[in-house]
Amino acid sequence: MQNIPSRLIEEAVDQMSSLPGIGRKTALRLVLELIRRTPQEVERFSNSFSNLREGIRYCEKCHNLSDNPLCNICASPHRDHQTICVVADIRDVMAIEGTGQYQGLYHVLGGLISPMDGIAPSDLFIDALIARVNEGHVTEIILALSASMEGETTGFYLYKKIQPAGVRVSAIARGISVGGELEYTDEITLGRSIRQRTPFESVMKK
Amino acid sequence: MQNIPSRLIEEAVDQMSSLPGIGRKTALRLVLELIRRTPQEVERFSNSFSNLREGIRYCEKCHNLSDNPLCNICASPHRDHQTICVVADIRDVMAIEGTGQYQGLYHVLGGLISPMDGIAPSDLFIDALIARVNEGHVTEIILALSASMEGETTGFYLYKKIQPAGVRVSAIARGISVGGELEYTDEITLGRSIRQRTPFESVMKK
Repeated sequence: MQNIPSRLIEEAVDQMSSLPGIGRKTALRLVLELIRRTPQEVERFSNSFSNLREGIRYCEKCHNLSDNPLCNICASPHRDHQTICVVADIRDVMAIEGTGQYQGLYHVLGGLISPMDGIAPSDLFIDALIARVNEGHVTEIILALSASMEGETTGFYLYKKIQPAGVRVSAIARGISVGGELEYTDEITLGRSIRQRTPFESVMKK
Repeated sequence: MQNIPSRLIEEAVDQMSSLPGIGRKTALRLVLELIRRTPQEVERFSNSFSNLREGIRYCEKCHNLSDNPLCNICASPHRDHQTICVVADIRDVMAIEGTGQYQGLYHVLGGLISPMDGIAPSDLFIDALIARVNEGHVTEIILALSASMEGETTGFYLYKKIQPAGVRVSAIARGISVGGELEYTDEITLGRSIRQRTPFESVMKK
């Protein structure tokens, strides 16, 4: 690594390279770019992170990240409050919102059950989800969890917990991605996509 | 791009992705990582940049970045104050310092003469260099500029300016890099390395 002539630069490079995927060489390049900016610009840059960390909170209802006690989605009267889509992470919420295809609410678990990583059901916001189901307004729970072992385990656990309340539980469709080639699809996905085939009319409606 | 549910996150992502080479998706990943840290950690992260921008200055003598009016190199009594290595950028200082092979001082030009980009000699710290030469303590100027058209132009300009003071002007050696293959070296570099061949004894001393 190159010799850094200044304690101030050294500290800024240390902090920048503490971010995942940013090495010291990249960090130095970014820090030198900041030095070229006006003090006002750097102040705004640096404040955006401290303001974020101080101001950001989790939505009391769905545990999505939010500026307010209740997130925009939970607070909106235009959303379908009878449907809850369960996801592991806030990035999943953003991805699904990006499709513009979903009008219900969300519930962010904060992870997936993983005995290997020592993550038990009590480490996730599962009780809060069950409480929302038991309030009685919800008619469907959509499980949008990853197709990994942890995702399947969590899905099964949630299904057993939610079922007694008499609420419909569904899972997002697995299958060949749009534009995907049959011959390059793995056997498990292809097998599932045959077993869970959909009526052709519903495909045409899309 | 994914929908971002929070104004605070949006602003932090905007600022992060204003850095060169950081796209919005990477910026979001970095910002979500910051949210996972304690407020104290994020405060330290964010302060490192505002402290840097407020505290950093250019060395009065060599225009290297520095925490003090005079940089560590210019202030050191252990360096050879009769030799000045002229570089375009502060990163070049760091690179040369990293070799541990140079004990003299530096002079950072702040760029290279480039009529194409509208950078004239007066835009660079050239007058300050001539003033240092004219003080009379300097015996050698080493030009460590890039082998580009701009580097050659700047080198030639400096040579004409410095020569009248009777100071020795040298340039860093160009040639085949250590470990480099002859057959893959471009013709100009190879041609130069033959013309500017060095006595074998000086190679053995290394």
